[in-house]
Amino acid sequence: MTQTPKNIAIIGSGLVGSLLAIYLRKLGHHITVYDRRRDIRNVEFSGRSINLAMSNRGWKALREVGIEDHIKELGIPMDKRAIHLVGQPEYYQKYGKEKEAIWSISRGVLNRKMIDLAEAEGAVFRFEEKVWDVDLVEAKIYTGATEKGRWEEYAYDIVFGCDGAFSRVRHKMQRRSRFDYSQDFIDVGYKELTIPANEDGTHKLDKYSFHIWPRGKFMFIAMPNLDGSFTCTLFLPFEGDISFEKLRTKEEVKKFFNSYFPSVSQAIEDLSSDFLKNPTSALVTMKCYPWTYMDKVALVGDSAHAVVPFYGQGMNAGFEDIYALNKIIGQYGDDWLSIFKEYQTERKPNADAIAELSYRNFMEMSSMTADPRFILQKKIEKRFSQKHPEKWIPVYSRVTFSERSYVEALAYGDAQEEVMAQIMRTPNIEEVWESEEVEQKILELISKSKSL
Amino acid sequence: MTQTPKNIAIIGSGLVGSLLAIYLRKLGHHITVYDRRRDIRNVEFSGRSINLAMSNRGWKALREVGIEDHIKELGIPMDKRAIHLVGQPEYYQKYGKEKEAIWSISRGVLNRKMIDLAEAEGAVFRFEEKVWDVDLVEAKIYTGATEKGRWEEYAYDIVFGCDGAFSRVRHKMQRRSRFDYSQDFIDVGYKELTIPANEDGTHKLDKYSFHIWPRGKFMFIAMPNLDGSFTCTLFLPFEGDISFEKLRTKEEVKKFFNSYFPSVSQAIEDLSSDFLKNPTSALVTMKCYPWTYMDKVALVGDSAHAVVPFYGQGMNAGFEDIYALNKIIGQYGDDWLSIFKEYQTERKPNADAIAELSYRNFMEMSSMTADPRFILQKKIEKRFSQKHPEKWIPVYSRVTFSERSYVEALAYGDAQEEVMAQIMRTPNIEEVWESEEVEQKILELISKSKSL
Repeated sequence: MTQTPKNIAIIGSGLVGSLLAIYLRKLGHHITVYDRRRDIRNVEFSGRSINLAMSNRGWKALREVGIEDHIKELGIPMDKRAIHLVGQPEYYQKYGKEKEAIWSISRGVLNRKMIDLAEAEGAVFRFEEKVWDVDLVEAKIYTGATEKGRWEEYAYDIVFGCDGAFSRVRHKMQRRSRFDYSQDFIDVGYKELTIPANEDGTHKLDKYSFHIWPRGKFMFIAMPNLDGSFTCTLFLPFEGDISFEKLRTKEEVKKFFNSYFPSVSQAIEDLSSDFLKNPTSALVTMKCYPWTYMDKVALVGDSAHAVVPFYGQGMNAGFEDIYALNKIIGQYGDDWLSIFKEYQTERKPNADAIAELSYRNFMEMSSMTADPRFILQKKIEKRFSQKHPEKWIPVYSRVTFSERSYVEALAYGDAQEEVMAQIMRTPNIEEVWESEEVEQKILELISKSKSL
Repeated sequence: MTQTPKNIAIIGSGLVGSLLAIYLRKLGHHITVYDRRRDIRNVEFSGRSINLAMSNRGWKALREVGIEDHIKELGIPMDKRAIHLVGQPEYYQKYGKEKEAIWSISRGVLNRKMIDLAEAEGAVFRFEEKVWDVDLVEAKIYTGATEKGRWEEYAYDIVFGCDGAFSRVRHKMQRRSRFDYSQDFIDVGYKELTIPANEDGTHKLDKYSFHIWPRGKFMFIAMPNLDGSFTCTLFLPFEGDISFEKLRTKEEVKKFFNSYFPSVSQAIEDLSSDFLKNPTSALVTMKCYPWTYMDKVALVGDSAHAVVPFYGQGMNAGFEDIYALNKIIGQYGDDWLSIFKEYQTERKPNADAIAELSYRNFMEMSSMTADPRFILQKKIEKRFSQKHPEKWIPVYSRVTFSERSYVEALAYGDAQEEVMAQIMRTPNIEEVWESEEVEQKILELISKSKSL
């Protein structure tokens, strides 16, 4: 079906806003993108800070508009986890099958490129112009220098809110009756640190790995950058025995890293001063509904569904929103009321599913070393999966390397957990886990499950 | 412990704000109450609209400051439910033991009286003065005619947000990191209607009853007023086969009432025109945390925990907040940091419990007629409770006529449900429900339960 060109405002020039601009320009719409921040292309940064992991859903959305190859040049494929336990040599876990990898990309570098590509398609960007209010009924936006100062009014046919977890557009929708909304912070915060390159520009750790130091209730991770450095993140409870509140002095920070992360404590640049200088940030799951107002306003990406980062799917889920929206536009043509209804109906359950998966994955990631029964369960799953690869796909692969829905992946994972809960109740499972009997029992339980 | 007088602002002159003013005046504090609305004592209303049910927790909080008797003059005790099924005579269910009753009181009439009583204690009320912003750190409030106009700044020692489910004070707290918040609307809305008095001023239905017309997915209720009228509420889904969206014309409204509520359709004043004129309102459960900021700001009542109205506990829970806060002040004296910490720690789980109980009670109320198994279960519970009154207190009584915590009441109700789920699985329960065997089985299950 063909499309009548519309005047469309996109609020937010981040990754989701830029990609949506590209998609909508390809459909012939007039696009203006507003952002309260400076043009990120003119902001100096090292190219190191805040990395993300692009996986299949993200690549699929980029491929659809022909920009996958441009973006791959900016990234480094990570085909495995490198797991660092205290007092043991690091070991590797392949993520998936041959050629399956997640890609480490600097958010800033990617964002610059995406804005370039959107501008090349004809989208107009207006930076340093903050949207203070939105008239949902009329699809008007109001911008100005200050909240209490004079505002400019702009009328559009459609307004998209791509303005992130603290979206101003959603804020306006939230004041309406019957708008469901929740924000839940977890007790774990995070802080970014850097491992610099060797003097010859090479990487200090394996370049093609996602590095993880799991420590039970906390963990440290590192992702490679093109310049040889690694962007690292410490995830740690805010309060408690081992927590950010206990790390207030250089000595406390050094002691903490020497105890728990001896293998990297020397490698991190200016460890204790960076630690005390860099902010400690909070992590939130945000859900809301509805995502659209009539045929006038829609939320896309983090503004509709912010998740904790433990599945590396935040941006991928936002890009998949756009891919799905584009398919729906293809079905409904100019009927934006139906487009928006279908869009939120299809995407909302998937957003809830990846929120749940992301929340659970912190436990999974950080306890890779802790509980012997957990490790045994993972060994049984791995053994079974290797013998029957078509009958037992790891949920991580289902989420990361498949294009089937998040809803399905969550149901699949829950069904696997139910099977394994029964298997782990087998008497003497520690001794019989490699037996024919356990394998047959798993096969039998799978055959009875609806979701496996 | 003694109290150093503080300058305290209370935002909101509703029931909770007024009662808190009385409590804090009795402790010697200087109190100013701000409200964006006109003084309700100068607003004309019929004295009929929006009734509430005062029960033990509310009375306890009023008694503590010696105003219980003043308020009882405004209410009508309802010692039973009057249940109206289609094509059957109404029948009565006593709420509890002798003298146990809930009291029907007009919110407007009660609010006027509470403001009078607070003024008599020396609280200062500033009406038509809207608070637009709150400085949490400095306990300052900003008022003015419009959001974008000039604001006045007032500094206090402490600010209480008693400004209801859409609290401006909470709104400011919500922008802080690590503030958990949710608002969940249910699919059922409500509309108020009136049954006027007989010409001689007497009531058209039994005066001392809470009247209910349960119809499965919807219901109609009526509560008595002193002037002989009843304030009625229709609870009905917004969308679906039988819903507000299907009642758009006078004919549709008349037909609906004649079908489902034939016994009252004649009694309701101007039924179809009132129906189309009066607003359809939504129902929300709002939760948040924390409720306090340092020793500066605290939320009390609906601003901290708004619930759906199906347990008649909204105001009672708010009054109990104040009662609990006052007890804690008695323990900690001038240490407001500890007072606020203890207050939110103690009250938050109870607020969550009454939210859950209120949400579930719609099903309980509206399905009193519907499911034969549900009715059988209630008959078994009633029979057992009559034989062993100390072993089986109905949850409704636990919530409404007891002063033990909502948390306990919820756990008690859940444990009863577990017992009854097992009992209902008894083969041929329809035939054996009055048997000695079933009674013994319930006794046995109770003895095994931790919460019963």
